[in-house]
Amino acid sequence: MKKVITFLLSLVMGCSYAQNTDSLAIRKIYNEALGNGKSYEWLRYLTKQIGPRLSGSAGAQKAVDWTKQVMEQQGFDRVFLQEVMVPHWVRGAKEEAFIRVEKQKINVPIAALGGSVATSPKGVEAGVIEVKSFPELRALGPDKVKGKIVFFNRPMDPTKINTFEAYGGAVDQRANGATEAAKLGAVGAIVRSMTNVHDDNPHTGGMRYGTGVALIPTAAISTNGADLLSKSLTENPGLTFYFKQNCESLPDAKSYNVVGELRGSEKPDEIIVVGGHLDSWDLAEGAHDDGSGCVQSIEVLRIMKALGIKPKRTIRAVMFMNEENGLRGGVKYADLAKQNNEKHIAAVESDEGGFTPRGFGIVGTPEQRAKVNPWKPLLVPYGLTDIGAGSGGADIGPLATLGTVLFGFKPDSQRYFDYHHTPVDRFETVSQRELELGAASMAALVYLLDQYGL
Amino acid sequence: MKKVITFLLSLVMGCSYAQNTDSLAIRKIYNEALGNGKSYEWLRYLTKQIGPRLSGSAGAQKAVDWTKQVMEQQGFDRVFLQEVMVPHWVRGAKEEAFIRVEKQKINVPIAALGGSVATSPKGVEAGVIEVKSFPELRALGPDKVKGKIVFFNRPMDPTKINTFEAYGGAVDQRANGATEAAKLGAVGAIVRSMTNVHDDNPHTGGMRYGTGVALIPTAAISTNGADLLSKSLTENPGLTFYFKQNCESLPDAKSYNVVGELRGSEKPDEIIVVGGHLDSWDLAEGAHDDGSGCVQSIEVLRIMKALGIKPKRTIRAVMFMNEENGLRGGVKYADLAKQNNEKHIAAVESDEGGFTPRGFGIVGTPEQRAKVNPWKPLLVPYGLTDIGAGSGGADIGPLATLGTVLFGFKPDSQRYFDYHHTPVDRFETVSQRELELGAASMAALVYLLDQYGL
Repeated sequence: MKKVITFLLSLVMGCSYAQNTDSLAIRKIYNEALGNGKSYEWLRYLTKQIGPRLSGSAGAQKAVDWTKQVMEQQGFDRVFLQEVMVPHWVRGAKEEAFIRVEKQKINVPIAALGGSVATSPKGVEAGVIEVKSFPELRALGPDKVKGKIVFFNRPMDPTKINTFEAYGGAVDQRANGATEAAKLGAVGAIVRSMTNVHDDNPHTGGMRYGTGVALIPTAAISTNGADLLSKSLTENPGLTFYFKQNCESLPDAKSYNVVGELRGSEKPDEIIVVGGHLDSWDLAEGAHDDGSGCVQSIEVLRIMKALGIKPKRTIRAVMFMNEENGLRGGVKYADLAKQNNEKHIAAVESDEGGFTPRGFGIVGTPEQRAKVNPWKPLLVPYGLTDIGAGSGGADIGPLATLGTVLFGFKPDSQRYFDYHHTPVDRFETVSQRELELGAASMAALVYLLDQYGL
Repeated sequence: MKKVITFLLSLVMGCSYAQNTDSLAIRKIYNEALGNGKSYEWLRYLTKQIGPRLSGSAGAQKAVDWTKQVMEQQGFDRVFLQEVMVPHWVRGAKEEAFIRVEKQKINVPIAALGGSVATSPKGVEAGVIEVKSFPELRALGPDKVKGKIVFFNRPMDPTKINTFEAYGGAVDQRANGATEAAKLGAVGAIVRSMTNVHDDNPHTGGMRYGTGVALIPTAAISTNGADLLSKSLTENPGLTFYFKQNCESLPDAKSYNVVGELRGSEKPDEIIVVGGHLDSWDLAEGAHDDGSGCVQSIEVLRIMKALGIKPKRTIRAVMFMNEENGLRGGVKYADLAKQNNEKHIAAVESDEGGFTPRGFGIVGTPEQRAKVNPWKPLLVPYGLTDIGAGSGGADIGPLATLGTVLFGFKPDSQRYFDYHHTPVDRFETVSQRELELGAASMAALVYLLDQYGL
């Protein structure tokens, strides 16, 4: 009996010893991030010195060179590039747009959606059909839509607590609106910006043309512009809308994912990825989307090195290229992992902004998710209360087919779409503490993943 | 046996019915706040049209008149004022300060602390003793301190996750620094601003003189200014510091708490308070501190009315006067409650900014706190995961002696001290969604307090 008690006691003590060690390690991670953090100054450089970095642009190449250099300077065990061909879309001269009511022209702010074709050099002008959904559009039929500009004006639902859910409920208009409009013979598609705020910033973003339909030009209009257009249509259903945009798709360009690595001391063949995407929209500094995720990922490795944590497994910080308009970097990363027979046990992505951490969404089997449960009490003191089934991240998504468990870093979502894909997504909107807490939260999760696997 | 089962079943069903009713009511509260909220536009008026409103100022009086009018327009059952005499401190002309190293003068940004005396009209100039704590100061003794300016330079600890904890660990310097310095014969006290950011804004705030010591002038210096002064002292220990301030304490002024009320339909004598403080520092628009708490409190009552919720108990929105430099409004409110034999079962205060809600701190007995446990699952879907023993709020504090259970609204704390007590605490730093979510969270708690009591 005594032996049994001693054995049980040693189990309990061993368990609490491990918990205590982990608790102290995580406390040190947060202290390092908040006391000696580098992510904020890195973000300043990436946004203010490099700035916009859409795939294929000179800015994107500068960002590749610079993040490689930063990771080399940190003395990571290995820093390397993964070549990837990316779409190369350019906006050209700034767009013009106005509502014409009789002899009056009222200018409104628009921005071509990424991937859209240009209008003719003279622009396009036509009557406007306002709809809130694709079924509503289809019900109108080709007779009413042909030769018109379709105006998609369904707002993000402000009553959704998580703004990403509201975004998910509206973004079909941006992604597929032009295609649905073209099917019925429309000559253009104007889409209400994906944001809850009422302002004058058109929010750009990706769109795709379906096969077998005419390629019609499509643009985002600011929410204030959308409200004005809607009101004007009520008063003057016969008004016309004019817009002119000068964008084009050039041949694919050569670019890179940038990878930094700390080699595992015990199980170097098991890889844990932590990443963000390096490209941004051409209009934005890309501070929250996704400069934050990039500098936080590098910071995770820096923190581990600074604290003398020698990971058992191999930890990689990955700056993925081309999340915004192609996902080629994420696909290439997973392709290479498969080709090289690499075993990726987990991947963590930060692509929801540099805001206060709330938790992690997990994509994995119920058994894999259950593995995380004992870690939760270690993370709650840092505000990480929302950990469970959820979404991972676009760039790490392709790794799922390799059996990798995906973790999407979930910061507070309230302000993200105030800035998203506009010039307002700039360094000044990022709180140093919020950014650093995010980096620390990711480092704490990576530390636990490294200690215990999945 | 069958009867027992039926009885138990009816209990369970009754219970889940109530939970379901509450869940729907709370969902409607959030929908109203996020879809038709008024708090943001009210805050715009309070900060942009009225602006700074330190106790005794014309701004404070305007804020009293305007919030009374807003609540009257909302058709609350009763709106009334509670007269209270408040301290009337004025800053006078803007402060001047510089570091003098040999013939060089380097200007630094300072702001007199609220309650401080002026310097002589010519200002004060003296050598500087830098300390991090009162024990360190006392160890120096009068010989080293006499005739000097004491420079309190202990920063807020950036590794504290909750910034209010870091504030609590540094604010003794601001509150009592002048007194401790004067005890040893110092001629002035300069205090590092209470913030984690490195910037050029001196953060003012309240201070008190101890009895029986000389009243020496005291000011906050910006964190950048503090770092510069510290560095300069290392290089030139013999440097002098000059400052001039022109503040004075005028006779107490007449002012008011502003109270709006929805009368209870079943237990009108049981009162639930929801409030914030109406005064702000003279340098600030007081957007987060505490315009947010005021407009959120009015919004709680507006939401209930808009949804047709007829409270069982009496619900009061209270705009307390003079939290910043006297707490006279909070004290007066509790005095009148006692005098009028009013039964205040609960009080909720919002005075930690208009940021994303995280929970509520509770001041009450363990039994009272346990009463709240069944409500937690109703609030978690809205991100309110941090509900438990904590602090209430300065203004509602005096109600504790009447047995009132206090609830301090806890929004995310990361950005609060970036703005606190400076001109940066302006409307533009408030996110509409974050503000509205706060109002909804307070309304949800008030709804549950009203339904179930404590």
